[in-house]
Amino acid sequence: MAAQTLLSSAAASSSLSSSFEDGESTKNVSFLSAFSPAALHCNGRSNRRISSKKTQVVRCSVKTQEEQIYATQVKRNPNFAKLQAGYLFPEIGRRRAAHIAKHPDAKVISLGIGDTTEPIPSVITDGMKNKAHGLSTLEGYSGYGAEQGEGPLRTAIQQLYSKISPHTGVKPNEVFVSDGAKCDIARLQMMFGSDVTIAVQDPSYPAYVDSSVMMGQTGLYQTHSQQYSKIHYMKCSPENDFFPDLSSTPRTDIIFFCSPNNPTGAAATFQQLEELVSFAKRNGSIIVYDSAYSIYITDDSRPKSIYEIPGARKVAIEISSFSKFAGFTGVRLGWTVVPEELMYADGSPLGEPFPVIKDFNRVMTTSFNGASNIAQAGGLACLSEEGWKAMEDLVGFYRENVSILVTALKSVGLTTYGGENAPYVWVHFPGQSSWDVFAKILEEANIVTTPGSGFGPGGEGFVRISAFGHRENILEAAERLKKLFG
Amino acid sequence: MAAQTLLSSAAASSSLSSSFEDGESTKNVSFLSAFSPAALHCNGRSNRRISSKKTQVVRCSVKTQEEQIYATQVKRNPNFAKLQAGYLFPEIGRRRAAHIAKHPDAKVISLGIGDTTEPIPSVITDGMKNKAHGLSTLEGYSGYGAEQGEGPLRTAIQQLYSKISPHTGVKPNEVFVSDGAKCDIARLQMMFGSDVTIAVQDPSYPAYVDSSVMMGQTGLYQTHSQQYSKIHYMKCSPENDFFPDLSSTPRTDIIFFCSPNNPTGAAATFQQLEELVSFAKRNGSIIVYDSAYSIYITDDSRPKSIYEIPGARKVAIEISSFSKFAGFTGVRLGWTVVPEELMYADGSPLGEPFPVIKDFNRVMTTSFNGASNIAQAGGLACLSEEGWKAMEDLVGFYRENVSILVTALKSVGLTTYGGENAPYVWVHFPGQSSWDVFAKILEEANIVTTPGSGFGPGGEGFVRISAFGHRENILEAAERLKKLFG
Repeated sequence: MAAQTLLSSAAASSSLSSSFEDGESTKNVSFLSAFSPAALHCNGRSNRRISSKKTQVVRCSVKTQEEQIYATQVKRNPNFAKLQAGYLFPEIGRRRAAHIAKHPDAKVISLGIGDTTEPIPSVITDGMKNKAHGLSTLEGYSGYGAEQGEGPLRTAIQQLYSKISPHTGVKPNEVFVSDGAKCDIARLQMMFGSDVTIAVQDPSYPAYVDSSVMMGQTGLYQTHSQQYSKIHYMKCSPENDFFPDLSSTPRTDIIFFCSPNNPTGAAATFQQLEELVSFAKRNGSIIVYDSAYSIYITDDSRPKSIYEIPGARKVAIEISSFSKFAGFTGVRLGWTVVPEELMYADGSPLGEPFPVIKDFNRVMTTSFNGASNIAQAGGLACLSEEGWKAMEDLVGFYRENVSILVTALKSVGLTTYGGENAPYVWVHFPGQSSWDVFAKILEEANIVTTPGSGFGPGGEGFVRISAFGHRENILEAAERLKKLFG
Repeated sequence: MAAQTLLSSAAASSSLSSSFEDGESTKNVSFLSAFSPAALHCNGRSNRRISSKKTQVVRCSVKTQEEQIYATQVKRNPNFAKLQAGYLFPEIGRRRAAHIAKHPDAKVISLGIGDTTEPIPSVITDGMKNKAHGLSTLEGYSGYGAEQGEGPLRTAIQQLYSKISPHTGVKPNEVFVSDGAKCDIARLQMMFGSDVTIAVQDPSYPAYVDSSVMMGQTGLYQTHSQQYSKIHYMKCSPENDFFPDLSSTPRTDIIFFCSPNNPTGAAATFQQLEELVSFAKRNGSIIVYDSAYSIYITDDSRPKSIYEIPGARKVAIEISSFSKFAGFTGVRLGWTVVPEELMYADGSPLGEPFPVIKDFNRVMTTSFNGASNIAQAGGLACLSEEGWKAMEDLVGFYRENVSILVTALKSVGLTTYGGENAPYVWVHFPGQSSWDVFAKILEEANIVTTPGSGFGPGGEGFVRISAFGHRENILEAAERLKKLFG
């Protein structure tokens, strides 16, 4: 049994139960069953009937203890061991479920995970219905599409950029259609590899940091600072108008920057983004600019795309998504723009600069197979004249929600940020623990929010409230919050 | 300009044009335009009108040469530089396009990339239409779903395994629904990380090797052997019934194994897979078993799932897909099974074995956001009683196609493999170059095939012919092939 690892079941179950905490949907994984596969060797069907280890040992006494606790000789990827606890939102889901289990009659309102709640305008779903129907006909059927997305959709997205500003200069072949920004973040990280250094806004969307850890770009998690070593956390707080102090920011290869920001709701100004682009250019860094919430910008002094800033094509990739534009959180459709001018320092056969777009194209063709053609039909419908109007109405609805929440929170003297150009309100509870405030709001008002510290140490003392909800729930939540904090 | 890299435009364009070869859809990327961003600084719109470098310099003479050839200081991921040429299928697409450009009137039949051609049965598209419609209603709308897939679909897939055999033992929580097997391969590689060693069948589906190279698991490409160093290529040829000689196969951490095989069409027997599982178990390896073509198996002596083999739950992950089951190549839906019993050698806080399922769950929740809910509704319809029947009819149609092709090829004395339990025919041209045969068939019969060597050096001397096509095209192709080789 040279190549097998043995362990005592007791030790295994204790170490497992303390470290398995990812995702609601796998919480029914039984650790005991993970250690009782021996039944499979006795009788394929008996495995299901075995409910305890004791029973199993009796039934399968011919199997040795070694057989029962087999492990492969493959070492776990050490980068995964660095990851702290679960991904934020499954963790919140678990706390929500525990609350509901404890208070089964509570009318819980979920303003935690930023999940859209309103139906998709039918002008858009009709596009998807027609495509789905077409797939059942000889004329309408299509198989594999280009991994980079269908031509008409790439062009429509390029035209969206032209509409934002004639200065963006985005070309159709620079637009890569995908199944969402979160997925593109992972693919970008796979492309950058393990040797790059990164900076993130603090607080920020957890996927930037977690994907960086997975790819081995970081050191260990530092309990005292609540940061991973080798990542630079750019503090964004009311003191600096939620824009990092770049004069004290070290150079990194990659800078993740989200505007309007998730979670703070802050949208950077032209001046701030010019400063960012100039900083990146001076340092030879690449900005990964997340504009997934740009449609919520109402204020003309704030760019909707990084490419509105002169020179950005040389330093920035932009990721975006239909999720919060059109309620496509479940439909799954996003895109990434990689300008032709964006160059690595080296990488060509003679060691000269190499276009990033070529490697991104390679990632997309090798590890992706295109977004669903039905979702792409939906995206095309979103960008039709009628679809765009319907989408703006939908966004307008959520904007009204934000305004209701902000008014309520301010009326009881709370300090709020964001909300004006974003579907999130960032509520300040100075000196308090985010998780404590989260627990208090859940416990006493039956409202699920998101603790700010879940987005990084810079989020401590804040709670994010999402404006994605049915109107009656938003109104009810506003009342409950006023009562709780009034 | 300390942090900027300068290069001479001439050097840059020469190195670029020789190394840019990925993907048809980016072939319109202009290298010249990649080096003429200065126009952006003069006038956002003028960029489009500039068609040559010379024009640009005249227009923007205020800009320095340095501005025009800016590169970041980010180093290219060296693993990407190891990748050879383009991904196989875009390369074939390019040759096809060149042929058509040369012979615009040729009636080209595409039996190259294994792309489904027949409409999806309406019982399945109706499921998707209904879901799309539902998204426009308050009752039917849903946003983010579980990253691991919707409960009913996970259960339906688990039931599919029960139907295959009561011995598979797959549980719903072990099923991770995704946007396709190719995407899951990349996510599995991200999970395994850069330190594992891998083995692949030779020939094999290129995504295993290419994703391994990207993740840094390999050394450089060796021109003499046409292999990447550090990957073990398990030769699969007529001499060994397309099953590797495991007695001469070294231990690797991961073994990619596809059955029915793409490209050879060989489906492993029970005995062969028992040997494989026992080999993996002896070595403490993890098998990544690709069963994307299992529905084409007609012969009961060949398993449709690795979990039909006793003990496989301790050593194997299985990836599969609706693409070739139901014509979902464009809809995008697949799944991966990770059994609870599958353990890394280490990784728990005390250094004891750690369940692989937990890390895969983490990858899925951090770098993926669920398959499209519309595609998932389609998957559920596929697995209904009526849907399954319709799917089997569809598969039956392609099986008839295979049989037509095999009969034609054999009638002119060619030696073929595969085809019986797979939608691919693997045609032997001993002593000839695959690309030469590919070119001959394209040039003289206007049929696109796939050169065997594109799947690895072990594919040299073979050509893969796909049976995915309209019946009249298959019949026509059969006639042309008979004429060409008769």
